[in-house]
Amino acid sequence: MTSVGIGILGAGTVGGVVVRRLTEDRESVLVRTGLDLEVKRVAVRDAERGRGIDASLVTTDARAVVDDPTVQLIVELIGGVDPAGELVLAALAAGKPVVTANKELIAARGPELFAAAAAAGVPLLFEAAVGGGIPIIRPLAETLAGEVLSRVSGIVNGTTNFVLTQMSDMGEDYAAALATAQDLGLAEADPTADVSGADAAAKAAILASLAFGTWVPVASIHTEGITDISPIDIEFAAGLGYVVKLLAIAERTEQGVNARVHPALVKDDHPLAAIRGATNAIFIEGPSVDQLLFAGPGAGGEPTATAVLGDVIDAARELLAGSDAAPRILFAPGEVLDFGEVSSKWYLRLEVADLPGVLAQIASSFGEAEVSIKSVWQEGLGDEATLLLITHSAREAQQRQAVESLEGLAVVKRVAAAIRVESDEV
Amino acid sequence: MTSVGIGILGAGTVGGVVVRRLTEDRESVLVRTGLDLEVKRVAVRDAERGRGIDASLVTTDARAVVDDPTVQLIVELIGGVDPAGELVLAALAAGKPVVTANKELIAARGPELFAAAAAAGVPLLFEAAVGGGIPIIRPLAETLAGEVLSRVSGIVNGTTNFVLTQMSDMGEDYAAALATAQDLGLAEADPTADVSGADAAAKAAILASLAFGTWVPVASIHTEGITDISPIDIEFAAGLGYVVKLLAIAERTEQGVNARVHPALVKDDHPLAAIRGATNAIFIEGPSVDQLLFAGPGAGGEPTATAVLGDVIDAARELLAGSDAAPRILFAPGEVLDFGEVSSKWYLRLEVADLPGVLAQIASSFGEAEVSIKSVWQEGLGDEATLLLITHSAREAQQRQAVESLEGLAVVKRVAAAIRVESDEV
Repeated sequence: MTSVGIGILGAGTVGGVVVRRLTEDRESVLVRTGLDLEVKRVAVRDAERGRGIDASLVTTDARAVVDDPTVQLIVELIGGVDPAGELVLAALAAGKPVVTANKELIAARGPELFAAAAAAGVPLLFEAAVGGGIPIIRPLAETLAGEVLSRVSGIVNGTTNFVLTQMSDMGEDYAAALATAQDLGLAEADPTADVSGADAAAKAAILASLAFGTWVPVASIHTEGITDISPIDIEFAAGLGYVVKLLAIAERTEQGVNARVHPALVKDDHPLAAIRGATNAIFIEGPSVDQLLFAGPGAGGEPTATAVLGDVIDAARELLAGSDAAPRILFAPGEVLDFGEVSSKWYLRLEVADLPGVLAQIASSFGEAEVSIKSVWQEGLGDEATLLLITHSAREAQQRQAVESLEGLAVVKRVAAAIRVESDEV
Repeated sequence: MTSVGIGILGAGTVGGVVVRRLTEDRESVLVRTGLDLEVKRVAVRDAERGRGIDASLVTTDARAVVDDPTVQLIVELIGGVDPAGELVLAALAAGKPVVTANKELIAARGPELFAAAAAAGVPLLFEAAVGGGIPIIRPLAETLAGEVLSRVSGIVNGTTNFVLTQMSDMGEDYAAALATAQDLGLAEADPTADVSGADAAAKAAILASLAFGTWVPVASIHTEGITDISPIDIEFAAGLGYVVKLLAIAERTEQGVNARVHPALVKDDHPLAAIRGATNAIFIEGPSVDQLLFAGPGAGGEPTATAVLGDVIDAARELLAGSDAAPRILFAPGEVLDFGEVSSKWYLRLEVADLPGVLAQIASSFGEAEVSIKSVWQEGLGDEATLLLITHSAREAQQRQAVESLEGLAVVKRVAAAIRVESDEV
């Protein structure tokens, strides 16, 4: 018997495509994989009714889909932590493999869910949770399982990369670039999760945890979004040979692992600088693999559905084999390094009085915090004087001390911008 | 019981690293995966003896390793079709999972080996066979299994990419650049398999077969190497905004699938143009995933060993689960398109007499073959006149007819170079 009954929870952007492709490609999947995947029930919200999905399959009761005895495998595409978490746990407890694209859920409750899957002896797969159509979870969890990785970094949110690309190319300010993204359907009406960095932080938690084998809670991830990025800094950065990107960075150091999300200046000849619009790109570094790059569409119904379908085929295969061979996601205890201990270079834009001795006072503030200045440029004169600085690498705590000290100087009117520089490390 | 006895066949560049890492990282792998992987026997050639491998594990009798009752899983790193093929078949027949990095073997005998693995109900994994440390086989076979792909293309041989990069950067001719590669250990003493394109053709056969679900025999792959590439064409190409790369290209068209390996002009702002030295990069395209890029170290003991170890962990997990859930590599019947029917643009360098009417005669040769000329440049004068042409896209058969016709013209002294142009399609 090669037939597997599939229950889909959620028929939104991704769910709608998954239902359609499972239905349309049923014969082709059977030929290619030997698996007959049949959609038995689809849980929808009222608003999603009638989107071309066979009405006899549709219900608004997601729990009824999980409990349906003809449903052997659950695809969770509702998103959010509740009620998705309880539905996934109920499915696993009933011995039904689960495929999900839900980054918030995995980031919030990963260890509990992986333990439930292990206890039930069924797979919990989530390739689509990070990087949309880019295969990244399986390479991390399986192909690279033979190596302890040192760093994962990249552009994991397409909306913010589009907005930053638009600001850079068109000289638009943040609000105008966001409005363009919304007009094109690349940003939601409420863009908070994207522009605040929260979406990237959930993905960073998952990537860091898989790469290092130590669970990195999303609460430990220092997160800054792009709402404070000014066109003037994008322009100044370009003049200095940098591009501004929102990066997710996960690092393993001798002191512990760390993950963070923040805007960063990236050298304009770095491969990440060339990643434009809604594309995602992820670097993986390790002592043996050196540096791997994965790039592609980070969101969108069709690419994400491809990742979901790959997981469905894998989970169905495991189910039919009656096996429990899905990779165990195991986490060893490990130190999560406090963000204050993480070192980076900073770009600073200061509005200063153009008086003799200003630079000496500023240099002294940096000196007290033990932060070295790498380069300084002055733009403008008199009351309009602007000082651009790039520092050498120093710990966050030192960099912040320097900024506080600068803010206390009478000659410094304002620390107008402070953005980390990641060119050498990324 | 979580212990698995491993037998390694071959202790060369990759095998030596695999043995060392399995031994050194045994505890760390156990913590991270729950699997206790123990190297029981290592088959070596005489020349490989004593390379830091525990002498009590070593034998020169590979078959004895396969037959050893304490060996439960075989890692084949001998390379070549014989005797590797018979050893792999013997291991599978004995119910022992096999991990191999052997592209020649998979390309030459893939369907037979996959059938033997399916019949035995044990995994045959080969992530390291293409792209060294780059995860590419598993993404193709598993993550992207839900989509029928349209095109796979890229740089899959690091030696030739290094030689072409060296020719381009240093203006060296082919022989000098190859000698540099040999000095650096990036090319073998006998470089034939790399520079002839044969290595890339074996990888192209594997990539095409996995991407399209139709077995593409290596014998069907049109293969040209880099031995005829002149520095002058690299220089002319650069002047026209192109970089010369050795590409493997697999395409699915309405007429059938096709794979080929040949040098090609790539636009200098294309991502593949930026892939320098021994790095590999592979593009995957499909109707839903759009375009994915994978890049990283395409060879070398350490990266390749990481790919081997990922497969070993996966195969060991399957073995312990007593399961038969490894993805079945299934091939549907499909048409392999004759290379003569494949369309591309061509770059041509002609040595011509600088006489009135030359261009008219040349244009007429192209016209008869129904090939349109896109651009023409003349370099030099008199007896030294050189004509560079780039054509519009036309079938191979037409392009070759045009070249034959040109060679018959008295005003054409020589068709000095003919290189395909892939900028728009890659």
